Amino acid sequence: MDTKIIRKVVDELCSENSLKSISFRTNFGTPLPSVKELSELVLLLRSAILPGYFISADHEPLDQQFYIGTILEKVSKKLKQEVLRGYCFFCETPDQCNTCKYKSSEVVENFIQTIPNIRHLISTDALAAYEGDPAARSAGEAIFCYPSIRALINHRIAHELYKLGVPLIPRIISELAHSETGIDIHPGAQIGEKFFMDHGTGIVIGETTIIGKNVRLYQGVTLGAKSFPLDANGKPIKGIARHPIVEDDVIIYAGATILGRITIGKGAVIGGNKWVTEAVPSGSKVV
Amino acid sequence: MDTKIIRKVVDELCSENSLKSISFRTNFGTPLPSVKELSELVLLLRSAILPGYFISADHEPLDQQFYIGTILEKVSKKLKQEVLRGYCFFCETPDQCNTCKYKSSEVVENFIQTIPNIRHLISTDALAAYEGDPAARSAGEAIFCYPSIRALINHRIAHELYKLGVPLIPRIISELAHSETGIDIHPGAQIGEKFFMDHGTGIVIGETTIIGKNVRLYQGVTLGAKSFPLDANGKPIKGIARHPIVEDDVIIYAGATILGRITIGKGAVIGGNKWVTEAVPSGSKVV
Amino acid sequence: MDTKIIRKVVDELCSENSLKSISFRTNFGTPLPSVKELSELVLLLRSAILPGYFISADHEPLDQQFYIGTILEKVSKKLKQEVLRGYCFFCETPDQCNTCKYKSSEVVENFIQTIPNIRHLISTDALAAYEGDPAARSAGEAIFCYPSIRALINHRIAHELYKLGVPLIPRIISELAHSETGIDIHPGAQIGEKFFMDHGTGIVIGETTIIGKNVRLYQGVTLGAKSFPLDANGKPIKGIARHPIVEDDVIIYAGATILGRITIGKGAVIGGNKWVTEAVPSGSKVV
Amino acid sequence: MDTKIIRKVVDELCSENSLKSISFRTNFGTPLPSVKELSELVLLLRSAILPGYFISADHEPLDQQFYIGTILEKVSKKLKQEVLRGYCFFCETPDQCNTCKYKSSEVVENFIQTIPNIRHLISTDALAAYEGDPAARSAGEAIFCYPSIRALINHRIAHELYKLGVPLIPRIISELAHSETGIDIHPGAQIGEKFFMDHGTGIVIGETTIIGKNVRLYQGVTLGAKSFPLDANGKPIKGIARHPIVEDDVIIYAGATILGRITIGKGAVIGGNKWVTEAVPSGSKVV
Amino acid sequence: MDTKIIRKVVDELCSENSLKSISFRTNFGTPLPSVKELSELVLLLRSAILPGYFISADHEPLDQQFYIGTILEKVSKKLKQEVLRGYCFFCETPDQCNTCKYKSSEVVENFIQTIPNIRHLISTDALAAYEGDPAARSAGEAIFCYPSIRALINHRIAHELYKLGVPLIPRIISELAHSETGIDIHPGAQIGEKFFMDHGTGIVIGETTIIGKNVRLYQGVTLGAKSFPLDANGKPIKGIARHPIVEDDVIIYAGATILGRITIGKGAVIGGNKWVTEAVPSGSKVV
Amino acid sequence: MDTKIIRKVVDELCSENSLKSISFRTNFGTPLPSVKELSELVLLLRSAILPGYFISADHEPLDQQFYIGTILEKVSKKLKQEVLRGYCFFCETPDQCNTCKYKSSEVVENFIQTIPNIRHLISTDALAAYEGDPAARSAGEAIFCYPSIRALINHRIAHELYKLGVPLIPRIISELAHSETGIDIHPGAQIGEKFFMDHGTGIVIGETTIIGKNVRLYQGVTLGAKSFPLDANGKPIKGIARHPIVEDDVIIYAGATILGRITIGKGAVIGGNKWVTEAVPSGSKVV
Repeated sequence: MDTKIIRKVVDELCSENSLKSISFRTNFGTPLPSVKELSELVLLLRSAILPGYFISADHEPLDQQFYIGTILEKVSKKLKQEVLRGYCFFCETPDQCNTCKYKSSEVVENFIQTIPNIRHLISTDALAAYEGDPAARSAGEAIFCYPSIRALINHRIAHELYKLGVPLIPRIISELAHSETGIDIHPGAQIGEKFFMDHGTGIVIGETTIIGKNVRLYQGVTLGAKSFPLDANGKPIKGIARHPIVEDDVIIYAGATILGRITIGKGAVIGGNKWVTEAVPSGSKVV
Repeated sequence: MDTKIIRKVVDELCSENSLKSISFRTNFGTPLPSVKELSELVLLLRSAILPGYFISADHEPLDQQFYIGTILEKVSKKLKQEVLRGYCFFCETPDQCNTCKYKSSEVVENFIQTIPNIRHLISTDALAAYEGDPAARSAGEAIFCYPSIRALINHRIAHELYKLGVPLIPRIISELAHSETGIDIHPGAQIGEKFFMDHGTGIVIGETTIIGKNVRLYQGVTLGAKSFPLDANGKPIKGIARHPIVEDDVIIYAGATILGRITIGKGAVIGGNKWVTEAVPSGSKVV
Repeated sequence: MDTKIIRKVVDELCSENSLKSISFRTNFGTPLPSVKELSELVLLLRSAILPGYFISADHEPLDQQFYIGTILEKVSKKLKQEVLRGYCFFCETPDQCNTCKYKSSEVVENFIQTIPNIRHLISTDALAAYEGDPAARSAGEAIFCYPSIRALINHRIAHELYKLGVPLIPRIISELAHSETGIDIHPGAQIGEKFFMDHGTGIVIGETTIIGKNVRLYQGVTLGAKSFPLDANGKPIKGIARHPIVEDDVIIYAGATILGRITIGKGAVIGGNKWVTEAVPSGSKVV
Repeated sequence: MDTKIIRKVVDELCSENSLKSISFRTNFGTPLPSVKELSELVLLLRSAILPGYFISADHEPLDQQFYIGTILEKVSKKLKQEVLRGYCFFCETPDQCNTCKYKSSEVVENFIQTIPNIRHLISTDALAAYEGDPAARSAGEAIFCYPSIRALINHRIAHELYKLGVPLIPRIISELAHSETGIDIHPGAQIGEKFFMDHGTGIVIGETTIIGKNVRLYQGVTLGAKSFPLDANGKPIKGIARHPIVEDDVIIYAGATILGRITIGKGAVIGGNKWVTEAVPSGSKVV
Repeated sequence: MDTKIIRKVVDELCSENSLKSISFRTNFGTPLPSVKELSELVLLLRSAILPGYFISADHEPLDQQFYIGTILEKVSKKLKQEVLRGYCFFCETPDQCNTCKYKSSEVVENFIQTIPNIRHLISTDALAAYEGDPAARSAGEAIFCYPSIRALINHRIAHELYKLGVPLIPRIISELAHSETGIDIHPGAQIGEKFFMDHGTGIVIGETTIIGKNVRLYQGVTLGAKSFPLDANGKPIKGIARHPIVEDDVIIYAGATILGRITIGKGAVIGGNKWVTEAVPSGSKVV
Repeated sequence: MDTKIIRKVVDELCSENSLKSISFRTNFGTPLPSVKELSELVLLLRSAILPGYFISADHEPLDQQFYIGTILEKVSKKLKQEVLRGYCFFCETPDQCNTCKYKSSEVVENFIQTIPNIRHLISTDALAAYEGDPAARSAGEAIFCYPSIRALINHRIAHELYKLGVPLIPRIISELAHSETGIDIHPGAQIGEKFFMDHGTGIVIGETTIIGKNVRLYQGVTLGAKSFPLDANGKPIKGIARHPIVEDDVIIYAGATILGRITIGKGAVIGGNKWVTEAVPSGSKVV
């Protein structure tokens, strides 16, 4: 090909205007977060939380402690780096850098301590999957076979980082699970133990959703917002509670859509393809 | 970070209680099945079934026999290893091991012989995709462009292993396709030739489904169970036929939901988003 | 395992009849297109269009020109190779080869020059995602967190190749995005700037769809065909406009299905799960 | 760093004068030979010649034929490519290209047929190593433990290509062995069966050397040229026999230097560190 | 190329006679030792013995214990596998297998406990290198810059395995160092602390050599055997002490050759290129 | 294996005394230099200096500028990192760190500008190899086939860094070439243009050696020191000129040893295996 053509295209792509249009910025020396690194981080965390299920089986450890300890050290380093990049993604002056570094260290120290609880929650999710599947022979089988578990590991990790105030990174972690499973859970969603999503593809769970214990969803269920309240300038107001509250023991069948800050009461059952925009009392069935 | 924090978390994660909660077990020396190995196994099988379409094009073989032969040898070794791990996942005593090994060898020997028939079925599926797509110029194009084909290769492989009684492994293979295509077919489903799923995302096909020849589904179709019959203890009864029978030449449009052990008669057409829980006579249209 | 069994299976798989059934052909020395190569090509293009977001962050270039230039050279070589394979996939005689080579060079030269405009369009898509997301703090965040952006980069690349008449390759590129995001856009679809698909899973957009500026779709929306007009022989007639026209500023909520060559007028809003097969006037709401 | 500095260095390195100084040329579209590819080629050949010793042990083939056949196909393709690059390295006009291609095909076809004989020769070399090593328990052990074997596989491959008139490639293959073992054998050297070099480091064997059967050398032995006869212009005359003839059953101890076209007669023994520039009669000892 | 040619060559290479000539054997199901695995094993051991110097610097461990522990677990598994392969390389009946397994386990258990002493010895070697190099600023610098250290790590590992009676594997480990450094030490050689080989290329140290403390050699030194005593059948008698004894504090300059079971007395100095076949008294100089 | 054994060994290896013995230190957060990174750095530099010869041939650049520019950016980053690690290897307090960083930047900026001259010198070395080899058909062939060229690229790079005062790193770069070629050149040696080392294995060139233009050495030549002058404390005095000066046009044949600060006069010829410790007049022959 004519070299001139490539040179011309390169010049256009490197013009300030063109770069500016895609939010290209230097972040004062800190690179952008790396989706690839975050993907490896999630794999490490999955391996610490559920040893043997995710990382190649020949790492059968003689001694869990060395194995888990080494993983957690790697997790600490990678997470600190990516959290820093997350903070710096929004930096406005190079002076902020030291604050970003300090916050990153603090976040990692706090996050690491939540891992045992994440394992506990995931173990209840695996139990829920097992109980919900007539064919499964053990909770271990459920861990291998259900996208629900993989989506929830990412979510429970992302949610802890979200609570610690980390920007950007939790959503990338959620999006990794969305791409892998077709299940789209915003990191802000609060989800109780023993949560199970059968099949899963197409499920959407919004940022301010609150889900109790022992809830089961099927594929294509949406827990969404009805509309965004706008401020005086017509901009969406941030942080307003706008997604459903789903209480303990609720079952929502495939394709149902629940919109707005309404409560689906304890033990309620929502039928397939239902469109629900008003509160549903405890124990009732919408079919 | 303070090393003490990591040590404390490691200790919690290695405590017997915590490990027990996630079904962590040693399987008497056999590691857990490896999803990564199974993923490579499926790639090898895809390459034997449809040479040139899946594995990097520069392996253009002078001589199919060497190429296919080498692949099948690798398939035999990997499959034997993973099937053994599948059996041992449920072992209760180390004594069972020899039985597991024996069964694994037998399974591989039987499975290998089904591959030519799997290719035959896939070739009819590719033909169906080609005929269903006004823009496609050859069945080869359909192989490249439709997730339906990739989901069906995995399914037809998994279904053979399911019929041979292999635990766990078939479902992992199905889940690999689910993650890749958004199509969730239980390995137990019986599917006739010339099956085509257009677009495919969100399709769910349950364990006891029976599908005839020349059937076409669109995205978001569910062939599901209405409810699980429970036994005296309130546990779901296993192995009960609970999913639809779809006869030859049926078309089911996007988003339709068919639930329960009902029969959709030969040549019937089910419209988009329909909710069907009762039998549909041959040749009729539900729109 | 008994070597005879493998030999027998190999013989069956290498028999002329079996190979013919799967469209196995030699393409006169040109290998089949490589999905792996195309996947790497898309990654390179993503990195040229949105530097820093897709390829590992330590390639922080001192000087965009070297970085972008090197990528474009690699893109030229890989694309030329794959486009050639695309043409040769349909070759009928080895004589055609020189024509295929000539056309491939021409395509690459033309395609390369469209990249700055693809970046421009993607920057408007990122802006649309940012504006549609109350929580996002910058268009850059939207690039990281929305499958919409990834699906649209693939689409806008594939669409340029489609317009240049390249066979097969554009559909493989679209299918790569479908697998990654659950969003299935045919490369023929014409899509204006500032397009946003929230959540995205299950969206299907057909070949002759025309979408205006500033349109927003939610998960599970179908823009499909009602039926294929058949010719005298009962074969679908190619190239007939059979999918919707969606004008500027339209919003279509989750799960809605729009079928046929109908027009959704400027600023119209289609509610969730709606089934629309007739034209919708500008500014109206279907709820 | 200041971008201007890099730009200035880049300009200097890309100036025509600077590039010319290092023989940078385009070869009319054919890239330079790839040392990496040649290194992989040698590994494949080693694996065909001595199955199981060089390529990772888990390729234990059920059936040698598939395994060896697949390797030879890869060898054919890689070798053809590199031999072509070798010829084109000296091309002077693009018109020569077709001749180069034709010659490359012919070379590969001829070379492939010499492999069984190369294996035969290497098996005699392994036997020689085994017999020369009081501690070795089998010829197989010798294959694993002696650099002599690795240097000779490369040499025997390179020598066949040298005899077929291939430029450049044989010397790169020899140099690969030199780097790996410290043994430097010119591809032109003629070496009989049962050749053994104990320890090997520092051995140099020149282009026109002729070595009989059952010869043994120790580390640091040089079989070199005394001087280059010059032509009328003072340039070395090519192809003149200028290195020693070493007859059957000779032993040359460590550090000895034999220079010029002299004959070391059958069964002679040359002591360590000896400097020999005149013929040595059969059966005599130089100590 | 004509497929028939490849088929013919394959047949020749797979004929029983041809395979037999290269000691091809099945080892009753155990593959041959893997040089690649052994190479990784040595890298792991180097990293345990000298943390930070050999494996990529970003594994900077927060906590040595996790890091070293994980490495030692990997070492145990890999070593056990390769030692087993070493034993089985000489197996004559499949019945021996259980003995081989038992011996492998025992070897690994014993070997692992020698690692701290290997580190101790290497630390004295590093000190010797540092003291012998006027330019070096620390023993750490010596570890990075001297092939002597790398050759000695391999040797001290191989020597422990040699003492434990492991066949084949120690020599492969020595040969790995020979290829990397040009230093050829037989695993049987006994070498005291503070050993230093300056430059190193071409050094050869034979199986029954005994070297005291604080000895220094230069490049090209040979500690070899004068001749092999033969038994009644003319076969070399195994295990006879036939290499030099080098006492403490000896220095041997470049290119010197010491042959036979002679003693170089404490503190002696042997000049460059000397040929020594008789004992040298303590404190004397041979120049 | 008994877990207790591994734990015990881990404890020993992590004890402060054991770690101290091997100079294990934390360098205040900066990891040790990485030999792997330095090896990649050298490969990049080789590719910038001699494009097409070292890095895989399919990077055939349409446009040298993008290619070289990208390489130099990577070189800058990697080199800066490793030079910093080199300085910090000798740091005594964390306060020094900023100085180390500043010096690293400065070194890289200066080094980068010497690359065009390094290419110039290497091009004269390739010419020398070509002229010295009766069989070679171009200087390009010499680049591919002579270890001399690879050793000299490393040396000329290392020498520039040595002159810039960088600790440790230059010697690691030299040792990489030593391992690859058997040629051991201290980074301090000053070497003029058109230098050629035929065969090369075993050559040793000391730190204060000065070599003129157009000098040729053969395998096994040593340019060494006779002895180290000691200071009052018996420690070697650093930086004293102690190696030979070799003037223009000298030839030194295989195995010769030249020791001490003596001058080998212009055009002198030293015969094979000679031992020279006194000055040699210009034009004379030592044979």
